[in-house]
Order: sequence, then C-alpha cells, then structure tokens
Amino acid sequence: MTFTTLIDYIGTFAFAISGIRMAAAKKFDWFGAYVVGLVTAVGGGTIRDLLLGVTPFWMLQPSYLIVTGFALLVVIVFGKQLIKMNTTMFLFDAIGLGLFTVVGFEKSLAAGFPIWVNIIMGTLTGAAGGILRDTLINEVPLIFRKDVYATACILGGFIFYICQKIGIGNAMCEILSASSVILIRIWAVRKSASLPLMKDDTAEEDEAMKGRS
Amino acid sequence: MTFTTLIDYIGTFAFAISGIRMAAAKKFDWFGAYVVGLVTAVGGGTIRDLLLGVTPFWMLQPSYLIVTGFALLVVIVFGKQLIKMNTTMFLFDAIGLGLFTVVGFEKSLAAGFPIWVNIIMGTLTGAAGGILRDTLINEVPLIFRKDVYATACILGGFIFYICQKIGIGNAMCEILSASSVILIRIWAVRKSASLPLMKDDTAEEDEAMKGRS
Amino acid sequence: MTFTTLIDYIGTFAFAISGIRMAAAKKFDWFGAYVVGLVTAVGGGTIRDLLLGVTPFWMLQPSYLIVTGFALLVVIVFGKQLIKMNTTMFLFDAIGLGLFTVVGFEKSLAAGFPIWVNIIMGTLTGAAGGILRDTLINEVPLIFRKDVYATACILGGFIFYICQKIGIGNAMCEILSASSVILIRIWAVRKSASLPLMKDDTAEEDEAMKGRS
Repeated sequence: MTFTTLIDYIGTFAFAISGIRMAAAKKFDWFGAYVVGLVTAVGGGTIRDLLLGVTPFWMLQPSYLIVTGFALLVVIVFGKQLIKMNTTMFLFDAIGLGLFTVVGFEKSLAAGFPIWVNIIMGTLTGAAGGILRDTLINEVPLIFRKDVYATACILGGFIFYICQKIGIGNAMCEILSASSVILIRIWAVRKSASLPLMKDDTAEEDEAMKGRS
Repeated sequence: MTFTTLIDYIGTFAFAISGIRMAAAKKFDWFGAYVVGLVTAVGGGTIRDLLLGVTPFWMLQPSYLIVTGFALLVVIVFGKQLIKMNTTMFLFDAIGLGLFTVVGFEKSLAAGFPIWVNIIMGTLTGAAGGILRDTLINEVPLIFRKDVYATACILGGFIFYICQKIGIGNAMCEILSASSVILIRIWAVRKSASLPLMKDDTAEEDEAMKGRS
Repeated sequence: MTFTTLIDYIGTFAFAISGIRMAAAKKFDWFGAYVVGLVTAVGGGTIRDLLLGVTPFWMLQPSYLIVTGFALLVVIVFGKQLIKMNTTMFLFDAIGLGLFTVVGFEKSLAAGFPIWVNIIMGTLTGAAGGILRDTLINEVPLIFRKDVYATACILGGFIFYICQKIGIGNAMCEILSASSVILIRIWAVRKSASLPLMKDDTAEEDEAMKGRS
C-alpha cells in the first residue's frame, strides 16, 4: 500500500464517519447509515466520474465499500468515545479533502479538460459528497451556509495550476496543493472564518419571480 | 409479450402508483405526480445505467412512460378504491422489487463487473427509485429508517451468485433470486422486521465535526 | 456572438438569478448562492447530457460559469433594485425556457432518439434545473405544485415535431416552438393557469403501502 492509498483510505474513512454520524442523529437504521456514509465518501468522485464519462472509481475495486463498512462498525461499537476524537476526525477529514481535491483535479486534467474544469472537478470530488449527504438526510447543505470548505478546494486547485505553470515537478505540485487545502481548512475552522452571506432583502421570490420554477 | 415483460410492467405500475400516491398526499398537480411516479419507477434503473455507462433503458422504448401514465389515470379515477387494494399493491410492489433486482444484477454481470458491483446494481435498481422519490417530495428516505427493503435486494443478489456458483441454470437462478427477494419482503412486512437503528448519542455532529460539510 | 448565443446567455442569466435569489432567501453564503445559481442554469442541460451520454455542455466552454458569476454580482450589488425588475426577469426567464426547450429537443434529435425522447429532453433542459435548485435548498419543487411551466416545454416539443412533419424549414420550426413555449408561459402567468391538483384522499401511503420505499 502506497502512501497515497493510505491517505485515500483515511479520507474515505473520515468522510464516511461524518455521514454515518449524521445518519445516526436522524435515527437511521444500519443500512441507511451505511448508504449515507458511502455517499458522503464516494459521492463527489462519482459525480466527477459521471461528468467526465468514465466508470466511477469505486466500481473498480471494493476497498471504498470496505472502508465504509469499517467506519460503520467503528461508529456502532465506539459511538460515544468518538466524540472525544473530534479533533482527530477533523484532521482526517481535512487531509481527505486535500487529497480528494488533488485526485479530482488530476483526473480531469488527464482527461484533457482545461484548468477551470479541473478546478471544478477537484472541488466536486472534495465537497459534493457532503452536499449529497445533506440532501439525503433532508437538510440544507451545510457548506452553502457557513464555513470555508469548498473554497479551500477551489484555492487548492489554483495552487496546483500555478505550481504547474512555474514548472514545479508533479509530485511537488500535488503536495503543495493538498497542503494548501488542509491548511486553509484548519485556519478557517480556527478563525471561524466564513464567506459573506447573501442579504435576504434581495429575495421575495415567491411573488417576485411569479411562477418561476 | 413474454412473462418477464408482464412482470416488468406490473412492477413498474406498482412503483409508479406508490410515487403518485405520495405526490397526491403532498397535493402535487398532475404533472408533478406523473414525474414522481416515473422517477419512482425508472429512477433506480436510470442510476444503474448511468453508472454502467449505457443509455437508460426507458429511452429505448416508451412502455415505461405509458405504464406510468396508466398508473396516473388509475389514481385519478379510482383514488379512494385503491386504498382497499393495498395488499394487492404491496404484492405487485414486492414482485417488481424481485424482478428489478434480478434485472439489475444481470445487466451489471453482462457488462463484466464483479459480484459485489452486481449486488449493488441489483439493489440500486430495486431500491434507489424510492430514495429519489422521497428526495423529490422533500422527505427523509423511508428505507433508511424502517423496514427490510434494500436488504432484501442485497440478499437476493447473494442468492443469485450462489446459484450460479453451484451450477444451477440461469433461468432457475433468476427465479430463485427474485423469489427470495419477494419472500423476504413479505416475511419482513408480516413480522414488522427491521434492521437495528443507529444510536443517537454517537452524534453531535454540528459541533462535533465542526464545519465538516 | 450570434442571436442564439445572446438568447442563451439571457436565459442562463435569468435562471441563475432565480437560483441566487432563492439562495439569498435562505441566507446562503456567496459560494452557496453561486452553486445554486449555476445548478439552476445548467442543471437541466447537464441531466440531459448525462442521459444522452455526451460531455455536459458547460464543460466545453466557460461562458455559463461566467454568466452565473455575473448574475451573482448583480444580485449582490443591485439586490433591492432587482425586485422592481421582476417583469423583465420573468420575460428573460420565459425566453430562456423557450430556447432551452428547443436546444434540448434538437440535441436529442441529432443523437438519433425518437420524438418522445426529444420532448422529454427538451422539457428536462428547460425545467429540471429548477427542480434541482429546489432540492438543493430543501424545498418541495415548485413546478410540481403550481403553475404551467414544464407543460409549456412539452407543448413546445410537440409543436417542433408537427412543424417538422409538415415540412417547415428548421429555423422556422425553432422559432415557432420557442415562441409557443414563451407565449404559453406568459399566458399561464397572466391567467394564473395551472394544472389540476391530485386529490389527497387517495393517499394514506404510510400505512397503505406499508413499508414500500
């Protein structure tokens, strides 16, 4: 197992844990929790692969399903203790976010798409699983309302692009890009940084956009 | 019309009825009810086909749209009487679930995917339409919270695999697998069987996974 | 820039504005508002392209992302004044709906699909973005409950088909079909026309379809 594979599993595990715990808060059964965990972990990459027109990555080897099953087991067995490990889980999540962003960026690049598609694919890989998760548990997606999350992926994508432009080797581009995502994420949570909110007064859409659907 | 086609239509009809009735409970208009019925009936197979990278099955012949239209007509005209037919509709639904599972399993198998992908594709074909339906009507998916539903599909997939391994002919594998799904489903509803629920105390995700999206 | 391109941008702009304003009503941040605007504008065409098995149109040129960014800027800067422009925005939206319907219809036709698939693809292109938008902001899709919206797309598709059958030139078919969608839409809003609603008494699905998911 390479270092990248290890990080990939750590990220998958952290994402799955996040989905499973939210499913638990909604009193889902084991199957429902597993599905929400899996969708959180592989949902972003699946949307990316469908958009790129390739077979979704988790259909090519069973490890993502197994890691998610392991995450379910951990939540069922160690439920309460997990709360004490929130900092660890947050770090795992941030590391996963950094890696997923790079993986998505490079997969799109290899498929011949331009830089702005690569950035979107990196961001989707990192952040779309959480949006799907929130839709499945019938909540408004968290990342639309608070925090710097997807924005870290977007910035990480830019950094990858700049690194390539100035001729840094690919491995170093990956490390710098992923690290940026992780550091931005940690910085944002420490500082409780978030993007500006939209103002409500601009919207009275029900009458305003009469019938617009 | 072969026997399989007949069962296919019966399943489509039952799935569509389920979606249309839930749309009616939300006071959707005829168009909304039709869409929800159609998504319930063909949504699972559509996700399967997109993941497998083939043209969605309902784009190749119009019968699924027609059966859904017929289901809408039945609900509009016979609305109240339908409640008395709940056992019949439940049986139709179970039969559809069994067939859809087998169809999804075999389509994935024919596309060259391994057993665990086949099981997932069978389960998606049977159960994902209901998840899409609940997302569209803005409810938490039922099958995540109660009942044995998708689990019946998973077990049916295993039985298909075992039948093949021990060298039973394909037609018999199909019958045994579909029957298992149907019987597990009937047994589960009779016994009010359901999977264990997740415990809520493991999740305080809002603070816990601070900012995790 | 051709006339069609101009109309395409106007429609994209109007659709994006509608999504961004609804996101503002939910107090999303700038990123969330941008995503909801983008999904409203390109979501329908993306579902169409995935179903047709081609690369989503917005991945081939960045203009849709730029127009959506411009729409975000407009809402942020001119928020309150936009309310006074509701009639204009409604017209832009209707024009976009007409064009999107024709674009979807023709793309499906060019891919070799039959008339009923073409009509569905035209309707998806026009109306599915709004459904995705409502799902993302955790609301029941508006077009399922009131108004004549998707129905205008369906009728516009039929008119395109009839025009072709009676041998009218392609450009004229496009104009007649798009105009029909726009006029039906304007007529429906003026007359507060809407489709019949489903009756609630047909549905007691929770007990009725016991366990149906």
